[in-house]
Amino acid sequence: MKLVLVRHGESVWNKENLFTGWTDVDLSPTGIEEARNGGKLLKEAGYDFDVAYTSYLKRAIHTLNYVLEQLDREWLPVYKSWKLNERHYGALQGLNKAETAEKYGEDQVKIWRRSFGTPPPALEATDTRNPALQEQYRYENKAELPLTESLATTIERVIPYYEAEIVPQMKAGKRVLIAAHGNSLRALVKYLDHMSDEEIVNVNIPTGVPLVYEFDENFKVTNKYYLGDQDALKAKMEAVANQGKAKA
Amino acid sequence: MKLVLVRHGESVWNKENLFTGWTDVDLSPTGIEEARNGGKLLKEAGYDFDVAYTSYLKRAIHTLNYVLEQLDREWLPVYKSWKLNERHYGALQGLNKAETAEKYGEDQVKIWRRSFGTPPPALEATDTRNPALQEQYRYENKAELPLTESLATTIERVIPYYEAEIVPQMKAGKRVLIAAHGNSLRALVKYLDHMSDEEIVNVNIPTGVPLVYEFDENFKVTNKYYLGDQDALKAKMEAVANQGKAKA
Repeated sequence: MKLVLVRHGESVWNKENLFTGWTDVDLSPTGIEEARNGGKLLKEAGYDFDVAYTSYLKRAIHTLNYVLEQLDREWLPVYKSWKLNERHYGALQGLNKAETAEKYGEDQVKIWRRSFGTPPPALEATDTRNPALQEQYRYENKAELPLTESLATTIERVIPYYEAEIVPQMKAGKRVLIAAHGNSLRALVKYLDHMSDEEIVNVNIPTGVPLVYEFDENFKVTNKYYLGDQDALKAKMEAVANQGKAKA
Repeated sequence: MKLVLVRHGESVWNKENLFTGWTDVDLSPTGIEEARNGGKLLKEAGYDFDVAYTSYLKRAIHTLNYVLEQLDREWLPVYKSWKLNERHYGALQGLNKAETAEKYGEDQVKIWRRSFGTPPPALEATDTRNPALQEQYRYENKAELPLTESLATTIERVIPYYEAEIVPQMKAGKRVLIAAHGNSLRALVKYLDHMSDEEIVNVNIPTGVPLVYEFDENFKVTNKYYLGDQDALKAKMEAVANQGKAKA
């Protein structure tokens, strides 16, 4: 039994140095290329799927679409949920990172970006960025929608969704593909790899590179690997780690 | 209560003069433009949706994706079913239309293309074009999958799907968008407009133009119209009718 995770590639906000979170920005041309390459890696390695999951955010939805296009599997059932969204970045969403560092101090911004449990300042409920006021979330349980999130609270909505929706599919023999975000995938990686709170904050999942988990019949993880050229992958992971130093 | 239908635009086989049916060919650049224009018409007229339906064929799936992109509604739930596929064109699928007319005679080809109840020659069960042997249909009830279809038999799978899956959504107040094909949409139009078998074969649904049905509280159709410039629409419908004379 296998599960494959793909993190979306570069978005159009990457270069603008803005905090993104749940802001629904699209992939950049580089991000599109990353997604297509992820699909090609899966195809070359002979992977196939029965069902796919993604978030409500178009950078993940489009990543999934490009991957499925490469696999000629666009007819697969696709389930979307905000539970797989990126970590909500609270009142920092849409703000320039350099300006935010000036205002709150580098150290504070680093805590918001890299700590396990400290969320950025919450949105006011009346803020137009409040998900409860946005069209995407009109049929959701408003009480569940966040005004900000830490990695800890992101995990608290990703894992129950994974256990309730995705695990039953895998147990039914379905081959599952998930296209999502840095932090919603970190939530899964922490859970699947039994990582500590300290370990997970230092994990950088490379963008557009399929991450494969293998399970035994007792649903225990037996193997974990990224597809593709491992040297190129190492360079990419270092780039992501460095990018992480200047951006969130 | 409203229901909106969109027929996919030009595919890459349009110009090659081949019978398509369930062959999974993509949109041409013109077809992409038609889909985007359909989305723009919906947006300009203030339409919004809660759920979308499409077929297993990428020319319809991509049309839906382009429409949803224009509406900024890519996060909507999308359900795909072969029950909304184009009419299956049997053993003619992939054949050149001119060569087919030479082999079987113009009159016979016209009957296959335009009669209500006469299907083209069926595929052999061992033919690689048999849907039961194709990946897309691996989890379907194989006994239901056709080896050829007339418009009559297309209706027999479209309408039960519409009644079982789509009508309950509409009754629950959901605004439904369907992106599909000339003949699966003809099936719906015949049903909704109570047309005779003779009438429906002369109906040509223009590509990429949203067709709106309005219903009263008893689910009776009270109004029907295409969005957009009505003169341009008339020209388009004539073009589709003429195209129909040379192609299927």
